[in-house]
Amino acid sequence: MNFSSHIPTKVIAGRGCVRAHAAALKPLGTCALIVTGKSSKTSGALADVTAALAQNSQRFAVFDEVAPNPTLACVKKGLALLQETGADFVIGVGGGSPMDAAKAIALLAVEPRADGAIFAGNYGANALPMAHIPTTAGTGSEVTPYAILTDDFARTKTSITSPALFPKIAFLDAAYTDNLPPHITKNTAMDAFSHAAESMLKNSSSPASELFARESLRILYPRLKSLEHPTEETRDVLLWASCLAGMAIAHTGTTFVHGMGYFLTYDYGIAHGRANGLLLGETLRIFAENHVPAVGEICAACGASANEIINTLSVLCGAREKIPREKCREYAARAMQTKNIKACKYQPTEEDILRIFTASLGGEET
Amino acid sequence: MNFSSHIPTKVIAGRGCVRAHAAALKPLGTCALIVTGKSSKTSGALADVTAALAQNSQRFAVFDEVAPNPTLACVKKGLALLQETGADFVIGVGGGSPMDAAKAIALLAVEPRADGAIFAGNYGANALPMAHIPTTAGTGSEVTPYAILTDDFARTKTSITSPALFPKIAFLDAAYTDNLPPHITKNTAMDAFSHAAESMLKNSSSPASELFARESLRILYPRLKSLEHPTEETRDVLLWASCLAGMAIAHTGTTFVHGMGYFLTYDYGIAHGRANGLLLGETLRIFAENHVPAVGEICAACGASANEIINTLSVLCGAREKIPREKCREYAARAMQTKNIKACKYQPTEEDILRIFTASLGGEET
Repeated sequence: MNFSSHIPTKVIAGRGCVRAHAAALKPLGTCALIVTGKSSKTSGALADVTAALAQNSQRFAVFDEVAPNPTLACVKKGLALLQETGADFVIGVGGGSPMDAAKAIALLAVEPRADGAIFAGNYGANALPMAHIPTTAGTGSEVTPYAILTDDFARTKTSITSPALFPKIAFLDAAYTDNLPPHITKNTAMDAFSHAAESMLKNSSSPASELFARESLRILYPRLKSLEHPTEETRDVLLWASCLAGMAIAHTGTTFVHGMGYFLTYDYGIAHGRANGLLLGETLRIFAENHVPAVGEICAACGASANEIINTLSVLCGAREKIPREKCREYAARAMQTKNIKACKYQPTEEDILRIFTASLGGEET
Repeated sequence: MNFSSHIPTKVIAGRGCVRAHAAALKPLGTCALIVTGKSSKTSGALADVTAALAQNSQRFAVFDEVAPNPTLACVKKGLALLQETGADFVIGVGGGSPMDAAKAIALLAVEPRADGAIFAGNYGANALPMAHIPTTAGTGSEVTPYAILTDDFARTKTSITSPALFPKIAFLDAAYTDNLPPHITKNTAMDAFSHAAESMLKNSSSPASELFARESLRILYPRLKSLEHPTEETRDVLLWASCLAGMAIAHTGTTFVHGMGYFLTYDYGIAHGRANGLLLGETLRIFAENHVPAVGEICAACGASANEIINTLSVLCGAREKIPREKCREYAARAMQTKNIKACKYQPTEEDILRIFTASLGGEET
C-alpha cells in the first residue's frame, strides 16, 4: 500500500454555482484572462463568470480564440493578451481545449519557454492562479495537472504535466452542458469513461486513484445508454463522473489508448473522446484475454460484463471511420515508442496495438 | 447536486514513507516544531521524522508534552517553545491529541488570540505550514480542518474549524500502529467508523463526502472483527480507512454523537473513540427506526444489517461504563443546545438523546 494522493483543487458543484459562489474568485487576483472558445457564449458560462467578476469588482479580458486541439500559436496569442492586459489570474471556460490552453498560458506566464522547450517538462511549482469551468462532461481537465496541446513537431498531441497546473477552483455547473448536441455528449462521455477505465489499467493505480475511478464508472456507465436526450439529472451525473475520472487520471495518467487516439485526432481530426471510445473496446478485450484482474474491477464498478461494456461503447461510436492498413502499421510502430506503453498492468506487443487499430478502424489494404 | 469538495492535503502512504519522502518536508520551512506525546518515541515515528529533517538539513525542536485531550495551557506551552526556537513550520506526530494541539499551535502562531477568543471562530486563511503523522488509526485529523481541544469553560471538548488547519502533508505509515495495544486499536477504529457513519447521517453529506465515507465503511467494517491481533495488512487498511473517514468529516463535520461523547470524555475520561463507539449503536437504531435512508446506505457499504453493525460495535465496546441517570438527563439537556443537534437527516428529540445515553451507559437512579 504505497501511494500518494493530492487533488488540491476546490470543487464547487451545482446549477448556478458560478454566480452563487462568485466570492470564491476574489482571492485569485485583480484581473482575469478568460480563456475560452466560441461555445461559451451560447452555454451561458461566459455571462455567468463575467457577472461574477463584476460582482467582485475584478477586471477581465476575454481571449475567445481557442479552437479544438489548441496549438502553440494559439497559446502564445493568449499569453500576449494576458501580458498586454496585465491579467494576474486565468479562468478557463469550455471543453478540454480552452481549459488546456488556459493552463498552458497560466504556466508560461510565470515560466516563459521557447517553443522547442514547452514539452520538455521540469516546470517549477508555480503558475498563475486558475479557476476552470467545464462546459462539456469529458475531459476532467478542471482537476488534473495536465495540459494537452497540439505538437506539430511530433505530429500528435502531447501533454505538459506539472502540479502547478492544478486549478485552484473548478466550478461544475451542468447547465452549461444541457444544450450540447448528442454527438458531443457521447464523445465526451466516452472520454470520461475512458479516463476512469484507463486509470484502473495503469500500474500506478492505487487505493486512492481507484476510489475515484470506480465511483466514476459506477455512476457513469448506466447513463451511457441515455445520451441521446439526457435529463438534467443525467447531465449532473455526467459532469460529476467526468470530474471524478479526472481525479483518477490526476493520480495515474492515461494509457496508450490516449496516445493512440492522439494520432487519430492529429491526422484525421477525429474528436478526442471519440478516438478513445473507438480504441477502448478492443483494448479492454485484449486485457481481458490476458486475465488482467483490473478488467474484472472495471466490470464490477459498471455492473456489466466486459462484452456488455465493449458493446455499449460500440453502440455509442456508431459507424466507424476507416483508416488505411499501412497507417495502422505506422501508428502501431509509433505507439510502441510512446512513454505510456509500458505503464499498464498488461504490456501490449506491437501486434496487440496493430490489432487494436485494425479491429477498431482498419480499412482496406491500399 | 449542490456541494463543495476540497481536501488540499497531500497524502503520502506506505511503510517507510516518512524517510522515503523526506524531500516533501523541504518546502515547509527551515525549522520545525515537532508536536507529540510520549508514544511517538516507541512507535518509531519521531526517529523517522527527525532523520528526515536531518536529511534535509532542517532544524527542529521537539515539544513532547501533549497528553490526551489537550488543554489550552498545553497549546500555549507549545506555542511558547515555537516562538522561542523560531520554528516556521509544525509537524504533528501522534494520535488526535498531538495532531490537534499541533494545529492549534500552527494557527495561533499566525493569529494570536486571548484564551476566551480561541473557540470564537472566524480565523483567517493562514497558519504555519504543517505535516502530520498519525500513529493511531482513528482521528483522521491529518486531513481535516478541525482541531479539538479541552474547553474548561464549557466543561467539554470544543472544535476550532478553519481551512487553514488542513495540513500540507499527511504521512500514513501503519508501522507506527503495529504495536498499539488492543484497547487502543479498538477505540480508534470505532472513532474512524463513527466518523464515516456520522458523515453519512449529516444533512450536509454530498456525493463527495459519501465517496469517502462509503469507501471507509466498506474497507473498515470487515476488519472490526480482527482487531485483537491485527495483521500488518489490516493495520494498513485501518490507517487508510481512518484517513478516508477524516476526508468524509472534512466535508460534513461530525454529528451530535461526537458532541455527546465529549461530555463522557471530559467528565469520566472515557477515551474519545470509545465514547463514540458506546453511543453510535443506539443512535443508528433510532435513525433506523425513523427510516432514514442513510442507514441503508451505511449498511450497504458495510455489507451488514443495522443490527449486525450495532452488535459488532457492542462486542468492541465490551463491558460498558455506567453513569448515573441524573447525569444522563443533564447531558441530554446540554446536548440539545449543541450546534450539531439539528444538522442530521433525523433531528433527535431530547427523549431520543436521553434514550441514547441511558441505553448506552445508563446506571441506576441515585
